Amino acid sequence: MSQPDIIVLAGGTGGAKLARGMADAAGAQRVAVIANTGDDIEIYGAHVSPDPDLVSFWLADAIDDRGWGLQGDSFAVMDALRELGVDVWFNLGDRDLAWCLERARMLAEGLSVTEALACLNLALGVRARVLPMSDDPVRTWIRIGETGWAGFQEFMIRDRATGLIEGLEYRGAEQAAPSAEVLGAIAGATAIVIGPSNPLASIGPILAVPGIREALIAAAAPVVAVSPIVGGKVLKGPTAQFMAFAALELSAAGVADFYGELLDGMVADENVAGLATLQTDTRMDDPLARARVASETLSFAEGLRG
Amino acid sequence: MSQPDIIVLAGGTGGAKLARGMADAAGAQRVAVIANTGDDIEIYGAHVSPDPDLVSFWLADAIDDRGWGLQGDSFAVMDALRELGVDVWFNLGDRDLAWCLERARMLAEGLSVTEALACLNLALGVRARVLPMSDDPVRTWIRIGETGWAGFQEFMIRDRATGLIEGLEYRGAEQAAPSAEVLGAIAGATAIVIGPSNPLASIGPILAVPGIREALIAAAAPVVAVSPIVGGKVLKGPTAQFMAFAALELSAAGVADFYGELLDGMVADENVAGLATLQTDTRMDDPLARARVASETLSFAEGLRG
Repeated sequence: MSQPDIIVLAGGTGGAKLARGMADAAGAQRVAVIANTGDDIEIYGAHVSPDPDLVSFWLADAIDDRGWGLQGDSFAVMDALRELGVDVWFNLGDRDLAWCLERARMLAEGLSVTEALACLNLALGVRARVLPMSDDPVRTWIRIGETGWAGFQEFMIRDRATGLIEGLEYRGAEQAAPSAEVLGAIAGATAIVIGPSNPLASIGPILAVPGIREALIAAAAPVVAVSPIVGGKVLKGPTAQFMAFAALELSAAGVADFYGELLDGMVADENVAGLATLQTDTRMDDPLARARVASETLSFAEGLRG
Repeated sequence: MSQPDIIVLAGGTGGAKLARGMADAAGAQRVAVIANTGDDIEIYGAHVSPDPDLVSFWLADAIDDRGWGLQGDSFAVMDALRELGVDVWFNLGDRDLAWCLERARMLAEGLSVTEALACLNLALGVRARVLPMSDDPVRTWIRIGETGWAGFQEFMIRDRATGLIEGLEYRGAEQAAPSAEVLGAIAGATAIVIGPSNPLASIGPILAVPGIREALIAAAAPVVAVSPIVGGKVLKGPTAQFMAFAALELSAAGVADFYGELLDGMVADENVAGLATLQTDTRMDDPLARARVASETLSFAEGLRG
């Protein structure tokens, strides 16, 4: 089979780990990841695409132990910028910067973000597909009471994700279209898995692109979500703040509420009333655990089919 | 004295060495270098300005032994680009890249190239002024018989300065204006020295900016040139090819012919008939030699005054 048929929707680490497990469990060529570009940022002359890149680096076994960026990367350029007096609030390794500078060059030459990432991933040896949700720019903006509107990276990194979220916008989403690759992957899927990423900040921007939610509902494949809440807690990132902003319960049921009619089932370590649930240990701390969660999720989804 | 009064016109290495010697001989605060921006190139998301930067790195004692770039710089980003399959024909160290990325950011924020370099040089501790000849873009293009028109860097580095030069254009020069800083420096000068740089490729673009040649002629200060030809040879770069293209003799007399009525005197290791000449050893291989050539040149120029 040359077309991928297992689709993972992913933001950052949670979705990336599930995608990695899925590639191990089912084979990389069966996996296509639809990744959030709402966190993209243009900085240092480069086009940085944190979520699609995190997924790519995980798939290539190139992710650094620190949880982001390329393994063993150096930081000579950031150090030099600091020497020049620049307030380096957004850290990027040298190899990571090269990756993002080369993407910016490809975009300037007219390639789409989908094509540019495909070229980069070919060089990195990634065999699964990583598909930006759209070739059009969508940017997630957050409003915090004290500081006002900020781009997602500014909120997350510069402002350390502090403060009460009072607003959330997926700017550009209404004018954006899903790429042909994304629509093709959804239409050809046998299983669609929403990764354990922040529903509002990571999956929300994907679903905000007109046509993607509709395509997921219309797809022949079952749609299941893996809950990002483990043992009643969020493992990483400001998901709790976003769930509170959306008045959602911090539980698998709250996540299910957010996705609504999209879902055919939920994978979580707790039961969700009124929805097909695979109750299992969803921690993915090592390769075996990642492959197990992926494999169980895939079997569960296949069992929900038609 | 707070305003610099010794003006050096410079391209790359020759002019930079003379400027360094002048700063040692007369004090950095007396020196302003008017530097060629015709070799500038936008690449890797950065704004690279080879001649003004070479002068700056020389003035900061930060030039690497290889003759370009910052001392002891690493090349992690270039290595990473090569890993991605990029044909890296233009090499740039990591700290050098940071320098040029930061300039690009400042330009995008609306600073002029003059202001951006002033900020960068402040951080590097350069006390002499380095003034790009214009805040407007001027780009030197070369036509080679076999390969056609190429930008200066492409000709010099990618094509290794090979082939017969059949055309030379300072594109954008006619629409460019000298910066206020350049005109102010020339007007306030007590001595103006054209460095031993390639007359056509390095000094030519400066003189092609409308108003600079006129300002040099109108200046109260004497204008002297240091010949780039030493022992009948060119020490560095493709000066011979350019002199041949312009049908100029490869000698101090040929250089004097190119500058014409601009010159009040010439510093060279050979005599120039019909022009006040300081005949001296013009090699500048070490700090002492650089300071001596600078000091003798300055005394010679001062002797020509009034």
